[in-house]
Amino acid sequence: MIQYNYGTGDRKNWLIAETAFDRDHQGKCEAIFCLGNGYLGQRAALEEPYAGQTRGMFICGTFDRFDESEVTELPNAADLTQINLTLDGCRFAMDRGGLDSYLRVMDLKTGELTRTVQWQHPDGQRFRLVFSRFVSMADRHVLGQRVSVTPLDADCTLRMSSGIDGQVTNTGTQHFHEGTKRIFGNDILRMTTQTMESGVTVCLHAAHRYLLDGAEISGKLLPVLDRRAMRMQADFTVPQGHTLVLEKLSTVHTSRDLAFDGLPAEEAAGAAEEKGCKHLQEAKQKGYDLLFRESREAWEAIWRKQDIRIEAENETDQLLIRFALYHLMIMVNPGDSRVGIAAKGLTGEGYKGHSFWDTEIFILPYFMLTRPEIARTLLTYRFRGLVGARKKAKENGFAGAMYPWEAAWADDGEVTPLWGAADIVTGKPIPILTGILEQHITADIAYSVWQYAVATGDWAFMDRCGFEILLDTGRFWASRAEWIGEKDRYEIRHVIGPDEYKDNVDNNAYTNYMAAHNMRLALQAMDLLETRDTAESRALRARFDFPSLRQDLRRVLEKLYLPEPDADGIVPQFDGYFDLKHIDLTPYKGRQPGAIYNDYNQEQICTFQVHKQADTVVLLLLMDDLFSPDIRQKNYTFYEARTLHDSSLSRSTHCVLAADLGEIDTAYQFFTGCGETDMGPNMGSSDAGVHTASMGGIWQCVVYGFGGTRIRGQDLHIAPRLPAGWKRLIYPLTWHGQDLQVTAEGERLRVENRGTEAVTLCLKGRMTEIPAGAGAEV
Amino acid sequence: MIQYNYGTGDRKNWLIAETAFDRDHQGKCEAIFCLGNGYLGQRAALEEPYAGQTRGMFICGTFDRFDESEVTELPNAADLTQINLTLDGCRFAMDRGGLDSYLRVMDLKTGELTRTVQWQHPDGQRFRLVFSRFVSMADRHVLGQRVSVTPLDADCTLRMSSGIDGQVTNTGTQHFHEGTKRIFGNDILRMTTQTMESGVTVCLHAAHRYLLDGAEISGKLLPVLDRRAMRMQADFTVPQGHTLVLEKLSTVHTSRDLAFDGLPAEEAAGAAEEKGCKHLQEAKQKGYDLLFRESREAWEAIWRKQDIRIEAENETDQLLIRFALYHLMIMVNPGDSRVGIAAKGLTGEGYKGHSFWDTEIFILPYFMLTRPEIARTLLTYRFRGLVGARKKAKENGFAGAMYPWEAAWADDGEVTPLWGAADIVTGKPIPILTGILEQHITADIAYSVWQYAVATGDWAFMDRCGFEILLDTGRFWASRAEWIGEKDRYEIRHVIGPDEYKDNVDNNAYTNYMAAHNMRLALQAMDLLETRDTAESRALRARFDFPSLRQDLRRVLEKLYLPEPDADGIVPQFDGYFDLKHIDLTPYKGRQPGAIYNDYNQEQICTFQVHKQADTVVLLLLMDDLFSPDIRQKNYTFYEARTLHDSSLSRSTHCVLAADLGEIDTAYQFFTGCGETDMGPNMGSSDAGVHTASMGGIWQCVVYGFGGTRIRGQDLHIAPRLPAGWKRLIYPLTWHGQDLQVTAEGERLRVENRGTEAVTLCLKGRMTEIPAGAGAEV
Repeated sequence: MIQYNYGTGDRKNWLIAETAFDRDHQGKCEAIFCLGNGYLGQRAALEEPYAGQTRGMFICGTFDRFDESEVTELPNAADLTQINLTLDGCRFAMDRGGLDSYLRVMDLKTGELTRTVQWQHPDGQRFRLVFSRFVSMADRHVLGQRVSVTPLDADCTLRMSSGIDGQVTNTGTQHFHEGTKRIFGNDILRMTTQTMESGVTVCLHAAHRYLLDGAEISGKLLPVLDRRAMRMQADFTVPQGHTLVLEKLSTVHTSRDLAFDGLPAEEAAGAAEEKGCKHLQEAKQKGYDLLFRESREAWEAIWRKQDIRIEAENETDQLLIRFALYHLMIMVNPGDSRVGIAAKGLTGEGYKGHSFWDTEIFILPYFMLTRPEIARTLLTYRFRGLVGARKKAKENGFAGAMYPWEAAWADDGEVTPLWGAADIVTGKPIPILTGILEQHITADIAYSVWQYAVATGDWAFMDRCGFEILLDTGRFWASRAEWIGEKDRYEIRHVIGPDEYKDNVDNNAYTNYMAAHNMRLALQAMDLLETRDTAESRALRARFDFPSLRQDLRRVLEKLYLPEPDADGIVPQFDGYFDLKHIDLTPYKGRQPGAIYNDYNQEQICTFQVHKQADTVVLLLLMDDLFSPDIRQKNYTFYEARTLHDSSLSRSTHCVLAADLGEIDTAYQFFTGCGETDMGPNMGSSDAGVHTASMGGIWQCVVYGFGGTRIRGQDLHIAPRLPAGWKRLIYPLTWHGQDLQVTAEGERLRVENRGTEAVTLCLKGRMTEIPAGAGAEV
Repeated sequence: MIQYNYGTGDRKNWLIAETAFDRDHQGKCEAIFCLGNGYLGQRAALEEPYAGQTRGMFICGTFDRFDESEVTELPNAADLTQINLTLDGCRFAMDRGGLDSYLRVMDLKTGELTRTVQWQHPDGQRFRLVFSRFVSMADRHVLGQRVSVTPLDADCTLRMSSGIDGQVTNTGTQHFHEGTKRIFGNDILRMTTQTMESGVTVCLHAAHRYLLDGAEISGKLLPVLDRRAMRMQADFTVPQGHTLVLEKLSTVHTSRDLAFDGLPAEEAAGAAEEKGCKHLQEAKQKGYDLLFRESREAWEAIWRKQDIRIEAENETDQLLIRFALYHLMIMVNPGDSRVGIAAKGLTGEGYKGHSFWDTEIFILPYFMLTRPEIARTLLTYRFRGLVGARKKAKENGFAGAMYPWEAAWADDGEVTPLWGAADIVTGKPIPILTGILEQHITADIAYSVWQYAVATGDWAFMDRCGFEILLDTGRFWASRAEWIGEKDRYEIRHVIGPDEYKDNVDNNAYTNYMAAHNMRLALQAMDLLETRDTAESRALRARFDFPSLRQDLRRVLEKLYLPEPDADGIVPQFDGYFDLKHIDLTPYKGRQPGAIYNDYNQEQICTFQVHKQADTVVLLLLMDDLFSPDIRQKNYTFYEARTLHDSSLSRSTHCVLAADLGEIDTAYQFFTGCGETDMGPNMGSSDAGVHTASMGGIWQCVVYGFGGTRIRGQDLHIAPRLPAGWKRLIYPLTWHGQDLQVTAEGERLRVENRGTEAVTLCLKGRMTEIPAGAGAEV
């Protein structure tokens, strides 16, 4: 049972509480309460084991591939969090004996997760147990845990068993060699393991400290080595009413840490061990309290700059945006451009740690408009990914860069798995075609690169990375489009658009328009490059044959088929769309995502006018000047009626579009729906991890939708339209390097420029210059 | 809570019951209730998942090696037994809601395991649930399960979810590729996977059938494919008081099945799929009841011949021997000489499925004297193992065949892991030296080969396999013994004897005497071979240089140091033994095995007069004419006082020796102690699997110890000495191919010859001929 808005006073709208323990629904809280800092993510699996638990610690960029039949994925590293307590001879578990009280609280503001339990031993004696943990935001390698045990009715014997457990897998797939285990001085445990194929060394250290009423004691210690596991077992007698505390501090290092970048693998592995050990010694000196304070202060500093305030009737709205911001902050490792954002962040195994278009279209806007240095890091990852994208283009017989639908290592190329769920009719696994056919991602990346340039004016990045992406992706589309002689036009056949309930279609409107945009951006890039006199621009001019590329792009652009609205104003999602059958969607709308697969197989679903998610509607959002408001309205209405929103990507798009179209109540409903993707009552929705795109989507609902913020042409437009129940909305933006604060209240809009240079913005349709340090109100 | 002797009437002394469910101690019943037939072993993990459960299905001879740092082990195959029930929306688990009654009964006679539960939904409604399963003894590839659900208080909704789960590992190590999954016709599931390194294909099929009050119904079915897993989900409404039954039938085939022996790997894999599917179709035709009846009849046929009857005050004695016989019957796959008996049989991961000296010294006597064809199969495995043994000898710089301490594939050679538990003092893993130093196994195998020849007169086997083992092992010892010039003798230095609490000793008495015996057997083999005129004997004479080998053996035998009793009559276990310190063993005797490691490390333990297990005492048993009764008595008393019996191999040796020495009460205590290894109150003792050597040991206690049966020279001696509480003991033997039945009652001994030829036995010290079909009483 999850209770949102648990806190009061200072902590109001910062806390999410789990007020009852339900063994069948552990996955949800494991994911939504996930702790992390972008370097590592630690699922909130409870200390003691339960059936149905999924322990997971994911360290960014440690990809590995199990065998030829599987794809590269982010391995589940050895577990540091399991702690077993034996109280008066009985292994503590909340579903045995009696559970007098249970409360688990996630504090989004401080990043600490705390569980408080009063438990009755099967023989009747009561215990108060408090479990706390954090993953440091101040020092990304540190994980702290504290367990305190107070026997309430009598003295008790207590055994604490805690260590490092490498028996975990990715749903049965083991990525690690057993590696080496060492115990130093009876209190520091070390496990060093290596991924099987990619050879990434992961080095974990853990130290245990025991305190009775605050004073350190030693207990009777026994180190235990097991296969792939090691632990320290400690026995105590705890007097009634007194409190025994275990502080467990752990450090996580890998040979791929940025600090060791460039070192040969073996040296990096040695450095990880050495640094890890030293790091843990330092952490031990500080102890849980000080380490946590440092982490909390780091969180507070982030919140001071990043918090969005929503004063609303429904207080969950405030919590929801903070929940999204919290997860946006723990899904990315600032400065590490060798890795993208995973579809589930570091909160679970789902989608194997791969990056999709989710990053660029759903998540990047947040970073671009509030933390541009992170947006640059993310786009630099795509720049590094040109190697893999060129590889994929070549493998598929095209020129330029064809980005992988799913990406892991930057130079991997395509890593989409080949097979998915069972076909209900044939019993065979369904082939996953997205890796081959879902090609719009290449245009999505190009789109975002340009948006980033506009938002930041970061031409240094464009010289170094951005222009090259635009050129090579434009080139890809020019080679990808097929000349159809009998129609005297270019077409893009055999694709999957954003709507994955339709595979292998021709001339998907979204794809064709975005491809055209991509090609125009490439032309624009060449024009710009010719005006620039940097080393990089000269190098690009030398490497690319501009005249020939221009000619190719213009030739294709001129004759590329771009589906137009029909007589009713509806843009067909793809060729032949209007011939598809209608079916009654009542049994599926608002139900469990994918419920339609219980009745139809993919082949059948392809023949219906039914959509997993926004497709043409995304186009209407990304290019909001493409069609008239009337056409936008008609298409929005038409397609929404046929969309199941079975993808977590769907609702935020509809929210923003509804807001654009003035349907604020509907927009608000979609916003609430976005929140339900992870925070809602469906207790299974987040088992495999939270939906990172949905976190970005929630931000888009608030800032793009209700905040009315959008990049149009070269300008930032702000024209808020708050939902009925919202009194005030305050959010930060960064435009051309200047930090802004936007306040919307009723009809009033105020923008403060907290930067050092003036900015010119389009506020409610009027271009307004705001000097540094000043504000503007309209 | 386990209750032995649960049954009454016909089922008396055949049943073991678990009368209460304890989540912390699932391992014990998983192992002791393990179902199997030697081809496969299925641990008795409950259908629904619990923390602390260890699912395991082990298929004989499917060895695989995960990586270079690990050793070959028997992989845990995909699980067929998990079945999840959701009753009125709540996942069934016995530790939620209310458990009104619980009873799980293992029927040793029929091989069926049945659990009967009355369970209360958290909302109060009651259900009667019955779970049955068997692994067929009639058709070794078939596994049957039945689950019946009866709602007692109201109609209920029921979801059954059952399939094949390949997410299991060997404590975190994954041996299988994900493989392929197929569903045929909505009711047959197939998973085909392959081991990573050894390329063994395992093909599993499962079919589900649902019956309401005996009539087949279909329910609403949904096939679900997951990573490494697949299942069929079925929804029903069950009227109050009616019974819904799921029958799940599965088949298990591998590319290494005897039926496919000799086929190229790919063909064998295809054949496993094809045969598996056909096999399952046939099984489906028959259904659970008929398949179970066939299996039960196979079990009954075995029991008719193999049962041992003990009429005793303590009825558990009768159950204990049947428990041992049950496990002896499911630990070996008759006819498959490519694989040995694992230290834990097929009941758990412990010791990685490897074969030790346990087979020859503790288990083989049972097979040799009751099922000689299986003994022959086991020794043929050692004959096949000559390849690996020669490899090991060569690697270590010796001649002949040096058997691996731990064996997996016959041609592997040594597969003992290199590292074990943590050193309590240094924190480092302890190196495992047994693979290098525990060399007596080579002599143990030779000893058993000769015992087999004597017991069976199977000279064809000796020609084909036995003599070659004797020659090559004798040759090994001749090269192994070191000439110590200053002592004018050969010694065998740097070994571990049976007692593993002493590593790296010189002149271990057991090893030296057994090595001498081995060399004498090699000489004897040459003498015999020279009298024989078979193709094999000619070939051996041609291959081995008899004169030179004779000379080597005689030279070493003549001067090999064989430790003699000291002034007090004690044979030193090894050089310098009497210099070791005494320590007080009270804190460890009768405690958890290995408890001494909580206080001392291996290095320290090596300096004490303390033993894990019988060492010199085993020698006194295997060569009971080596020393006078007085010396035997003295050594037995001396060493027993210093032995912790921390090995499951220890007590049976002491039991038989105590019986030999007339200490019947003590012998009986050791017998009871043997039983406690797996059947006793220590709920953790069998987690990793039952102790197969202990099963053989229990048989030795009864037949060698109380039955007074022993091979001496060329003869079988029988001279019973029953414990005080035993009224009658009846057991079968096979001698020179003739089936005998021995009945001991008080002073009376009766032996019936049920064979077709006369036998001559030494009954109570008197050579007695018993014609075919007749009996002798003394």
